[in-house]
Amino acid sequence: MALIVQKYGGTSVGSPERIKSVARRVAKYKAQGHQIVVVVSAMSGETNRLVALAKEVQAEPNAREMDVILSTGEQVTIGLLSMALMAEGLKAKSYTGAQVKILTDSAFTKARILSIDEENIRLDLSNDYVLVVAGFQGVDEDGNITTLGRGGSDTTGVAVAAALGADECQIYTDVDGVYTTDPRMVPEARRLKSITFEEMMEMASLGSKVLQIRSVEFAGKYKVKLRVLSSFEEEGEGTLITFEEDNTMEQAIISGIAFNRDEAKITVIGVPDKPGIAYQILGPVSEANIDVDMIIQNVGVGGATDFSFTVHRNEFAKAMDILKNKVQKHIGARDVLGDNKTAKVSVVGIGMRSHVGIASKMFRTLAEEGINIQMISTSEIKISVVIDEKYLELAVRVLHKAFDLDQESA
Amino acid sequence: MALIVQKYGGTSVGSPERIKSVARRVAKYKAQGHQIVVVVSAMSGETNRLVALAKEVQAEPNAREMDVILSTGEQVTIGLLSMALMAEGLKAKSYTGAQVKILTDSAFTKARILSIDEENIRLDLSNDYVLVVAGFQGVDEDGNITTLGRGGSDTTGVAVAAALGADECQIYTDVDGVYTTDPRMVPEARRLKSITFEEMMEMASLGSKVLQIRSVEFAGKYKVKLRVLSSFEEEGEGTLITFEEDNTMEQAIISGIAFNRDEAKITVIGVPDKPGIAYQILGPVSEANIDVDMIIQNVGVGGATDFSFTVHRNEFAKAMDILKNKVQKHIGARDVLGDNKTAKVSVVGIGMRSHVGIASKMFRTLAEEGINIQMISTSEIKISVVIDEKYLELAVRVLHKAFDLDQESA
Repeated sequence: MALIVQKYGGTSVGSPERIKSVARRVAKYKAQGHQIVVVVSAMSGETNRLVALAKEVQAEPNAREMDVILSTGEQVTIGLLSMALMAEGLKAKSYTGAQVKILTDSAFTKARILSIDEENIRLDLSNDYVLVVAGFQGVDEDGNITTLGRGGSDTTGVAVAAALGADECQIYTDVDGVYTTDPRMVPEARRLKSITFEEMMEMASLGSKVLQIRSVEFAGKYKVKLRVLSSFEEEGEGTLITFEEDNTMEQAIISGIAFNRDEAKITVIGVPDKPGIAYQILGPVSEANIDVDMIIQNVGVGGATDFSFTVHRNEFAKAMDILKNKVQKHIGARDVLGDNKTAKVSVVGIGMRSHVGIASKMFRTLAEEGINIQMISTSEIKISVVIDEKYLELAVRVLHKAFDLDQESA
Repeated sequence: MALIVQKYGGTSVGSPERIKSVARRVAKYKAQGHQIVVVVSAMSGETNRLVALAKEVQAEPNAREMDVILSTGEQVTIGLLSMALMAEGLKAKSYTGAQVKILTDSAFTKARILSIDEENIRLDLSNDYVLVVAGFQGVDEDGNITTLGRGGSDTTGVAVAAALGADECQIYTDVDGVYTTDPRMVPEARRLKSITFEEMMEMASLGSKVLQIRSVEFAGKYKVKLRVLSSFEEEGEGTLITFEEDNTMEQAIISGIAFNRDEAKITVIGVPDKPGIAYQILGPVSEANIDVDMIIQNVGVGGATDFSFTVHRNEFAKAMDILKNKVQKHIGARDVLGDNKTAKVSVVGIGMRSHVGIASKMFRTLAEEGINIQMISTSEIKISVVIDEKYLELAVRVLHKAFDLDQESA
């Protein structure tokens, strides 16, 4: 008997029929003697519907009230799935984030989980209930409803698995695992049987969209065994996310090509090259709750340097406003330039640690296609470049081929 | 400066445009210096949509999960209206039933309010917020979400007004007051400037549908000044619900004709005429949470009597099942008969206390139209009859005319 947390995304619970299909799958696991906690998203389309309603009423919807509204999406799903499970003859019970309670900070629309009170869940599990928990949502210490931001249901799944010490956290989605890159862009993309946490984290954060990055961080931190599966296939083992130390198999050099179309680039020109400048630039941005992705600062020349970073395209205007009106004069920078027509492409692979020449191969491949590289950033297991967004598809395709990711032996 | 609780029903908040219109009305009251708490229903159509979804998943939806789902309807409205109020430049904040907290018993889908913790609301009011509270919902002592049943938002409005000691509770609806009968059935129906609590209670319970009965009970119990108004008219004073003792004006003999199409009649035949029988019949019905309306037991003849009562048509099958299978043999009754094609018509008026002949006038009027009376029940201020539902419209029209309710001087 294992304790399994299963998370189903919006497409997997997108209609009464699909909810019943999820209930049948859960019933199958339950019949095998497992204890099951199910975490669900809002039915697909529901979140967008609610956001549209809100925007009709207030051009820039208040964040606290947005969360009150958005959290209803998952609340409907937990009720429906609990009913479907009862229709399958199981004992079932739903929990909202507040009922669990999933305590978060108060950053409405993008809150972070602080703790999970798993006591009631454990009691219900011991009484043979299947529990259905609302993903994506929580409650702050004042009792305000919060949401974790888009994709946050994955995080809820992993966090609940961690709190319960579950044997496995299964993330059901509309893809059947993690691919070498997005198969919609590159038909030759292959499913990986396993991928390390570190690679997965780079893949997710770079926009491969299979899992939300915070959920992977959580899984790594609490050593939760994570598996990505398709909710539309009866069989299939999906992709197992492994800890590097467990994985002594021969590694492919490169696991995949990740990309992110929603990247916007901002450069602060002529920044005095002195201590504390990075904080003075990024502090106000972060206080406005804008997530910063890549950060690049080159060696200064003549006492001044240029400082670049990228943000999500939706927050470009807000970030530019902060820099132009609050930061530029304050730090004595010459100018602030921005471009929201950019995209990021990365090659990711744990194997690149022990292999040289990956970067040069990547740059050469892009150069051969006439694609100009605007920014470069590297970590131990990935190399990312920012390019003009119009070259994104081309770049992903040629890199996928150049690193032999379409070959089974790769 | 007054403290006003305003309650808006589903039609009044049925679209973003209407929500904005409610916000403008609230802003107008706020500009006059009043403190405002707004209680809202789900957007019209939303509750039916959610019920339909649930029934697709489970033929007889589980009551606890039904409440989890249904309560999202009001939750969306409170978020939207708070946003609309902010767009009007007001400080606004939403509260779910659980956040208030509105404590109820655990009778899911038809819970009763036990207490309201108004402390946070009072604090927010003193900080100049307009508060938007979800109607229809609460939370039981174990933290389960409950709903008060259809129309329960009125009850929430009155209960919040009572808890706060509000100066007035304004119920906004799609009619502009209480009429002598349903104007959709009788075009000559007139709006009453005022009506006593007792009359209103009879009118509401008998199906006039302007206010939900429990809200009127609450208002009477806690002496809340209640006013019914139209949310679609800029001006208009609606109908004030008065306490009888405050009302020394000359009273019309009859205030209105109420009716209820959803009445089903059940008769237990050949019941032994001995103490405790009524309880043995109705106890199991009430334990199944079925509301009983009229109850009639005539003088027994030959040691046996017949016992009749009415229930809502939706609960007819359930009630018949209980009586046939649990009660009949147990008490030794001869048979159980039922008819769900009946309707109830009542004449209501505080003035009938001091006027004789109302009953005979009512019965004669119906007899002249050939309408057979199946059951009769009377209280101090109303006379109700159960008739074949096909005569309902005819009965209401002729009674409205017979009691001169179409005359302004009536």
